[in-house]
Amino acid sequence: MSTPLPLRLSAKASRTADSPINALIAAKLANPDLVNFAAGLVDEATLPVDEVAAITKRLFGESRRGQRALQYGTAIGLRELREALIAHLERLDGRHVGDLGLSADDVLVSTGSQQALYLIADVLLDPGDIVITANPSYFVFTGALQSMGARVLAVPMDDEGMDVDAVERLLEQLQAKGELARVKFVYCTSFFDNPTGLSLSTPRRRQLVEIVRRFSTSHRILILEDAAYRELGYDGAPLPSIKSFDAENQFTIITQTFSKPFAPGIKLGYTAMPPDLLDQVLRQKGSHDFGSSNVCQEIALETMTDGSYVRHLEVLKNEYRRKRDATLAALRANLTETAELHWTHPSGGIYVWLTLPKHVNTSREGRLFERCVKYGVLYVPGAYSFHPDAQGRTPNHHMRLCFGQVTFEEIAPGIERLAGAIKEEMA
Amino acid sequence: MSTPLPLRLSAKASRTADSPINALIAAKLANPDLVNFAAGLVDEATLPVDEVAAITKRLFGESRRGQRALQYGTAIGLRELREALIAHLERLDGRHVGDLGLSADDVLVSTGSQQALYLIADVLLDPGDIVITANPSYFVFTGALQSMGARVLAVPMDDEGMDVDAVERLLEQLQAKGELARVKFVYCTSFFDNPTGLSLSTPRRRQLVEIVRRFSTSHRILILEDAAYRELGYDGAPLPSIKSFDAENQFTIITQTFSKPFAPGIKLGYTAMPPDLLDQVLRQKGSHDFGSSNVCQEIALETMTDGSYVRHLEVLKNEYRRKRDATLAALRANLTETAELHWTHPSGGIYVWLTLPKHVNTSREGRLFERCVKYGVLYVPGAYSFHPDAQGRTPNHHMRLCFGQVTFEEIAPGIERLAGAIKEEMA
Repeated sequence: MSTPLPLRLSAKASRTADSPINALIAAKLANPDLVNFAAGLVDEATLPVDEVAAITKRLFGESRRGQRALQYGTAIGLRELREALIAHLERLDGRHVGDLGLSADDVLVSTGSQQALYLIADVLLDPGDIVITANPSYFVFTGALQSMGARVLAVPMDDEGMDVDAVERLLEQLQAKGELARVKFVYCTSFFDNPTGLSLSTPRRRQLVEIVRRFSTSHRILILEDAAYRELGYDGAPLPSIKSFDAENQFTIITQTFSKPFAPGIKLGYTAMPPDLLDQVLRQKGSHDFGSSNVCQEIALETMTDGSYVRHLEVLKNEYRRKRDATLAALRANLTETAELHWTHPSGGIYVWLTLPKHVNTSREGRLFERCVKYGVLYVPGAYSFHPDAQGRTPNHHMRLCFGQVTFEEIAPGIERLAGAIKEEMA
Repeated sequence: MSTPLPLRLSAKASRTADSPINALIAAKLANPDLVNFAAGLVDEATLPVDEVAAITKRLFGESRRGQRALQYGTAIGLRELREALIAHLERLDGRHVGDLGLSADDVLVSTGSQQALYLIADVLLDPGDIVITANPSYFVFTGALQSMGARVLAVPMDDEGMDVDAVERLLEQLQAKGELARVKFVYCTSFFDNPTGLSLSTPRRRQLVEIVRRFSTSHRILILEDAAYRELGYDGAPLPSIKSFDAENQFTIITQTFSKPFAPGIKLGYTAMPPDLLDQVLRQKGSHDFGSSNVCQEIALETMTDGSYVRHLEVLKNEYRRKRDATLAALRANLTETAELHWTHPSGGIYVWLTLPKHVNTSREGRLFERCVKYGVLYVPGAYSFHPDAQGRTPNHHMRLCFGQVTFEEIAPGIERLAGAIKEEMA
């Protein structure tokens, strides 16, 4: 075969790096007995197989329902599903729909919440535009932002989540530099985030809405609230959404998913957003796929309305809570928390975030990673989730542990291996 | 509620028009008894409800299979499905996989073929880049191209499909102007196309591959072959794909779908393409949705392997052939073909394309469209599918009729209404 002439790629393609996860998958393939704390997958044993068996039996047992499920849908998504979802958002926030300025017409059903994040970014961002996020934050989305040529500016976070005072200071600086017009949105994973497992505190939620309102002088600066893990809360009272502080549905977008609380295989997300933004997003969705799978939407509608969604979520939460507890117990049993070595104690989600002494390099190319692969345990290097600071430095002494996909039985031995490798590295 | 401040949109959003179809849907809603020859939907009665009932019963009756279907997948798609699809492409072309330079590793599974078209365009096109297509051509995709800022240059077509000599002349002109570097691909709906129902003849297929090879001097000019309707052929010998004339898998991409030959509701397409292009497309797909629904992919895999796909396709083809025949018979019974008034006689697909005398305006805003709505029949104005010629003129005396969604019984009265409106307009 002759060597082909090169392709001439778009600027966007040239800006798009290969997923860092591919390098991790290669390590996993080399040792299939690895305990995989890297994969951001969900617990396989608790996937709702019986529930979906019952649902599909009903759906395809009826000729009219079955036909509707197999026909084309609309770009915005099935009306009955959007109505069920808006009622679901109401319940989660304990607010009436009117108080949120929302109706089913403001909800988009998308091919996973990832697609909604992408479409929203795509209708707002030109190369050079600015998105503000926390450091660290969800790297698949910030990778997409970079492929669009956006400037991702990150503010620090602490146990209460994103430092919203730092957001305010950053906006002041950008205003002083005449760059406020380039700021399109603040991206915030507000519940049990990826990668730290931490949530934005309630006062900061209110404050963040006030801040974007205040700096919206000639155009709206939006908040994109990624609430993928919202429903996986294990202790404490549920937090209100950032969106619930925006009574007129003008400044905030909330996106949620069926992937974490139900099943990734139906690949559905849903997003409530201001109507003028939704109008633009729908045009793009028309170009992408003119509507997500109707089969999946009908399954989602059924599980929301037949009670199985809520019942299954309780099963899931009990299992994840048990795994979260096992992960934290194993860390405590094998490592001593200090000012230099500590980890988050998340009250929900599927992630624990470890901070190691600064001289311990957790990167894919480092000695610790290789040692862990040898011992049979995998993590995600923290550097993937960080943005360089003003000096261009990216911390590389953190790691993300996901207890989503590992089995309960794997957790103790997996953490023991990990702790062994860390202690050798620190010795 | 206060009037919100404006959003500051991206250049792409500003280039994206609302779908013209929305204007048609509004007409439909105003008169629910309309015979709808406008909707490009499939025949509802023949959707494979029983087949999918049996498949989902098997899938979710087995705990391991069910779990796999409900878990995350990979960006490229389920391996077993890609293997079944490459074997399917082999059968359609009657060629061994080696002769096509293809393996399952060259196949992407996407959220409908529309997503694949979008992703391919997105990794290749910057604003000002050139795509060559036929006049008329599939307007949803050319709309997406325009939203990316591409220049869509259209060549004429006749009963043998796109005029490939005109493609060659256009490339010569672009070369003379020094613009060859901006030409990224030729888009061709090669089988029973949308909107005309016509196919590219075999000699032109071979010739088109030779032309892009010849003009690929410093970079590869690709052919994007949209074969959505390929399997819906009703008479005559099957045509080889354009892709089958590119033995090294360097210059051609073929995209097919489950929507037309099986069911739109599973929203799956598949595309074989050169490996260096696939690598780029996968990076973008990682940003869009990191993999299409596993539930849908498992349904597709089952129907490809349990024999139901091929069996169901025969049922579908018989029904569509009957509707095609009824449409052509009704046109013949109600209108007389002349040099000025004629229609295509497609041997496959779901569209018939009518050419009316030049003074008859078929546009959405014209008198004929309103008359048709009044009489209870809907069509797609031809202008949606045309690109302006060198003088900026767009023909507006054509219409697309789709016999996909209408029932067999609606066809004769629907065409009678349409013909009545046309005759009044011509009188």
